[in-house]
Amino acid sequence: MVSSESLTILKIGGSVITDKRADDGVVRVNEIRRIAQEISGFKGKLMIVHGAGSFGHPQAKKFSLNEEFNATGSIITHLSVKELCSMVVDILNANGICAVGVHPMCCMLADNGRIQTMFLDQIHCMLEKDIVPVLHGDVVMDHSLGTSVISGDQIVPYLAKRLKASLLGIGSATAGVLDDNGSTIPIITPTNFENVKEYIKGSENTDVTGGMLGKVQEMLDLSASTHLTSYIFDAGQPGNIEHFLKGEKIGTAITHEQYECRS
Amino acid sequence: MVSSESLTILKIGGSVITDKRADDGVVRVNEIRRIAQEISGFKGKLMIVHGAGSFGHPQAKKFSLNEEFNATGSIITHLSVKELCSMVVDILNANGICAVGVHPMCCMLADNGRIQTMFLDQIHCMLEKDIVPVLHGDVVMDHSLGTSVISGDQIVPYLAKRLKASLLGIGSATAGVLDDNGSTIPIITPTNFENVKEYIKGSENTDVTGGMLGKVQEMLDLSASTHLTSYIFDAGQPGNIEHFLKGEKIGTAITHEQYECRS
Repeated sequence: MVSSESLTILKIGGSVITDKRADDGVVRVNEIRRIAQEISGFKGKLMIVHGAGSFGHPQAKKFSLNEEFNATGSIITHLSVKELCSMVVDILNANGICAVGVHPMCCMLADNGRIQTMFLDQIHCMLEKDIVPVLHGDVVMDHSLGTSVISGDQIVPYLAKRLKASLLGIGSATAGVLDDNGSTIPIITPTNFENVKEYIKGSENTDVTGGMLGKVQEMLDLSASTHLTSYIFDAGQPGNIEHFLKGEKIGTAITHEQYECRS
Repeated sequence: MVSSESLTILKIGGSVITDKRADDGVVRVNEIRRIAQEISGFKGKLMIVHGAGSFGHPQAKKFSLNEEFNATGSIITHLSVKELCSMVVDILNANGICAVGVHPMCCMLADNGRIQTMFLDQIHCMLEKDIVPVLHGDVVMDHSLGTSVISGDQIVPYLAKRLKASLLGIGSATAGVLDDNGSTIPIITPTNFENVKEYIKGSENTDVTGGMLGKVQEMLDLSASTHLTSYIFDAGQPGNIEHFLKGEKIGTAITHEQYECRS
């Protein structure tokens, strides 16, 4: 059980809360409702980061945001993911969770596609007051590129490190990281990462942000500098988010070798 | 005429773009369209700050946000002004202005009702890329109070000072600051402020943020530390915003004595 003062970060994949195959934003309202209900019993400090799915990704691709600066395309993409965030926040609040959207476009500066600085004072204060900040993959201003797409998978480790999170969950659309037989790999460390890499395929559909390989790499980088273990699990499976929030082992754990030796 | 490198800040009063007498948010879409058209010809660096009007103010009053911390009430109030901002941003973009909403809740921390810190890196980058940041009066996290209502009138001088704005316009619902005969007072300085005070009445309707007196006081405080002159003018009068953006004298100028002597 997590203490009331420790911080849990929950990433909810875009493919869980939207139909990622859709050309334009198709939200899975019932899934967001179910997730909100699973979260509503949690009493600790919580922060949520959700992916964009079919909100944002198609627009980012259409306007080639990863190739060149396009102000109009950046704004259209940002507005799309912001719309999804509003729906998530509304449903969380309707389920008794005091949640506020914190849009990366408003509080972040990137440089060459990586987060350079992020304002965190308001987030510290929200967590202190038991308000759940809801962030998301977004288009943000970029010092060298004009704008860049910053994925939820990049935001999560950035926040986990700076806010000293104690528990990190990556709720995706699969049962963790799968091997060739479709079985969940229980643990990934720098030692087995090279072997595991071959199993890791990019996400099936449009994803300008790197897919599963990107997720695992970010989590490994994180655990190299902290002793935090992350879990990648199937958030589409009812009950899993609740299990994760209770501190149960679930899906694939990603951790640094040093940590593995100690446990 | 303002050079393309100098910064203009335009405040648009909540009573201009909403029906401030309404109990719940009633937006004046045609007024926002007209304003967007007037702005669309402007080629310089521009930042917009709009008031909340009948979005936000009734909620802030209902939940007594100026008296005690209320997480749910803060969120409901914030969502209301955010909705107004979205409408403003959408209409600006539809009129060819690359505009992005920058919500104070996402990038500001207050202390005891005053702005303590605000993230500005993203705003600098937006201005550099000719994107118009659109801010607004908002509920923000407050270090000592939990949350507090930060008016657009407090945000404007804060930004004008830190971003070194060269032109500042307060587009309100009256023809500047009026004397007892209903005539516009052409200039307010610290010297005549005490006399002028008696003419300055609070805004007619619900306003938790201080009304006209608060506006003038903030502008005077600002001009004490800079040589920037602000103009308060009637933004409900077609053409006035365009005149202001062209650098024409309009409404009431608010300036520091030192500046007046030099001109």
